[in-house]
Amino acid sequence: MERLGAQTIKLQNPPTIVEVASIVGPKEGQGPLAKYFDQCLEDEFWGEKTWEKAESKIIKETVNSVITKSGVPADQIDYCFAGDLLNQCISSSFGLRELNIPFFGVFGACSTFVESLCLGSIFVDAKAARNVLCATSSHFCSAEKQFRFPLELGNQRPPTSQWTVTGSGAAVVGENGSGPYITMVTPGKIVDMGIKDANNMGAAMAPAAVDTLITHFRDTGRKPSYYDMIITGDLGYVGKEIVCELTETKGYNIKNNYEDCGVLIFDKEKQDTHSGGSGCACIGVTFSGYFFKQLKDKKLNRILLVATGALTNATTSQQGESIPGIAHAVAIETSIN
Amino acid sequence: MERLGAQTIKLQNPPTIVEVASIVGPKEGQGPLAKYFDQCLEDEFWGEKTWEKAESKIIKETVNSVITKSGVPADQIDYCFAGDLLNQCISSSFGLRELNIPFFGVFGACSTFVESLCLGSIFVDAKAARNVLCATSSHFCSAEKQFRFPLELGNQRPPTSQWTVTGSGAAVVGENGSGPYITMVTPGKIVDMGIKDANNMGAAMAPAAVDTLITHFRDTGRKPSYYDMIITGDLGYVGKEIVCELTETKGYNIKNNYEDCGVLIFDKEKQDTHSGGSGCACIGVTFSGYFFKQLKDKKLNRILLVATGALTNATTSQQGESIPGIAHAVAIETSIN
Repeated sequence: MERLGAQTIKLQNPPTIVEVASIVGPKEGQGPLAKYFDQCLEDEFWGEKTWEKAESKIIKETVNSVITKSGVPADQIDYCFAGDLLNQCISSSFGLRELNIPFFGVFGACSTFVESLCLGSIFVDAKAARNVLCATSSHFCSAEKQFRFPLELGNQRPPTSQWTVTGSGAAVVGENGSGPYITMVTPGKIVDMGIKDANNMGAAMAPAAVDTLITHFRDTGRKPSYYDMIITGDLGYVGKEIVCELTETKGYNIKNNYEDCGVLIFDKEKQDTHSGGSGCACIGVTFSGYFFKQLKDKKLNRILLVATGALTNATTSQQGESIPGIAHAVAIETSIN
Repeated sequence: MERLGAQTIKLQNPPTIVEVASIVGPKEGQGPLAKYFDQCLEDEFWGEKTWEKAESKIIKETVNSVITKSGVPADQIDYCFAGDLLNQCISSSFGLRELNIPFFGVFGACSTFVESLCLGSIFVDAKAARNVLCATSSHFCSAEKQFRFPLELGNQRPPTSQWTVTGSGAAVVGENGSGPYITMVTPGKIVDMGIKDANNMGAAMAPAAVDTLITHFRDTGRKPSYYDMIITGDLGYVGKEIVCELTETKGYNIKNNYEDCGVLIFDKEKQDTHSGGSGCACIGVTFSGYFFKQLKDKKLNRILLVATGALTNATTSQQGESIPGIAHAVAIETSIN
């Protein structure tokens, strides 16, 4: 393992993303990426009594699915890295309590999926683990209830607001395999530019994404054009535009090969989600569903996956606090030089 | 790095705990360990308007203190691992947002401090980092408000309940130093034995502690007597007794060299906390205050530090769910064979 520049790590024996799995809710199942997901649920409860229990079931079944699909015996998956948006990350801890795999709870808000990939790939490259499991989930109903208003209130949403993705994405990362490989990780710093609007998470998280992107380019000497695609997690339409503008002012043009999962997951015309999708599962399912397949089919060969998180809660919003953001990045490539 | 048995990692070049820092609240400052803490606050607010802001200030100042005390330039501390009990870990993210060090948010409830040490020491041993920062906090008032009842209610507490420690513990772990060394890590599994009483966290967490202890002994071939002291995080009087009993039924006698930070931090007679202390800061400050000094003075030379967490929230309790527990262990030794 080699440290590059300020905060990037180049993996010595790049771990393979052996397999992925994704389960999504009904709205995501009506969106443009529907055919890429393993399973699209018909309702938000999936037979459970509460949204929290439904979310736990979604991550549980997604994790069971990725283990089965991977063909890796569960006793060769040495550690699990998982987290979610619910208070005290209960979706992960309740959903995965029967997993019987040593568990590292992580919290990076909507950056959790890539935070897990950062930690997991370092464990594998360091030979601390043969295989690891990385997982996350979110649920529109449990998130709205917890962070904003009771759904029953039918509250109006402002144009900058985003729609929390219901679903779970999971990946098995291992020392053996033929790619796609995690080649570099650039964990991010907390960046707080003073945005206080809890209905404009894209703007709150965008500066953190820019900080991590610029740092990654400087640390590695790579230009944006090195990547077939640069992908952020859930900045949505508002945050994506800010990232394009801010990176340009820093001398980097990413407009030609940049996408955001919050923009991709819902149809702008037919599904009115205002500024797009959000939530831990947004990048989790869009990567595990859509982008992983593009990599396996070699339609994409080099991507930079950047997940962004808003490190806030309902109390801090009420106390007038601003919203700190964070972004973690991993470079994923189909061949290793 | 070498994998031992099911879930233990033996560090190849055991990282040194370079320095620690601890700040505690007024009640802890009246307890038996008062003289070991860097700072004892006179009130629970520390000049802030809310308990949440006070907790953020406590972790911020503790982290600033450990960096200064360590003598390690901040730009040589490559990553920070931190988390806490507040929803979405806001004490850490708000307290450390100006830190300007890449940040991994972790959540293991009251096991967070040792979870951070596990991750951080693996990063250092893998040469992913030169130095890392591990930190956690908790606050009696913010925790009671969030998990149980408004303090203003003056609610009666049952005998099994524990008192959340107000404070923060932080450590700088680095590749250079003369110890104490983190020699082994045993990350734990989620264990749920069906305890549903949110006022009996010790009983909920004890089986996870036992699972991790037994696993550590089996993986390493070490007997309990190898260690000068085995230390759990915050099981309190009730949980400690359960651990003694359960380990004995598994054929391990730890009674002669076992202590719990929840038992140590408050005076049983003069400070009525019922079953003892709890919270992320319980093991955080007891280790960073008391035990680190014992190791530096070579009064203790081999300890097994086991932090336990209850992976629950206020909603799951109300939904009648049981309380999953988890325990992570690190072996800390003053010399390396």
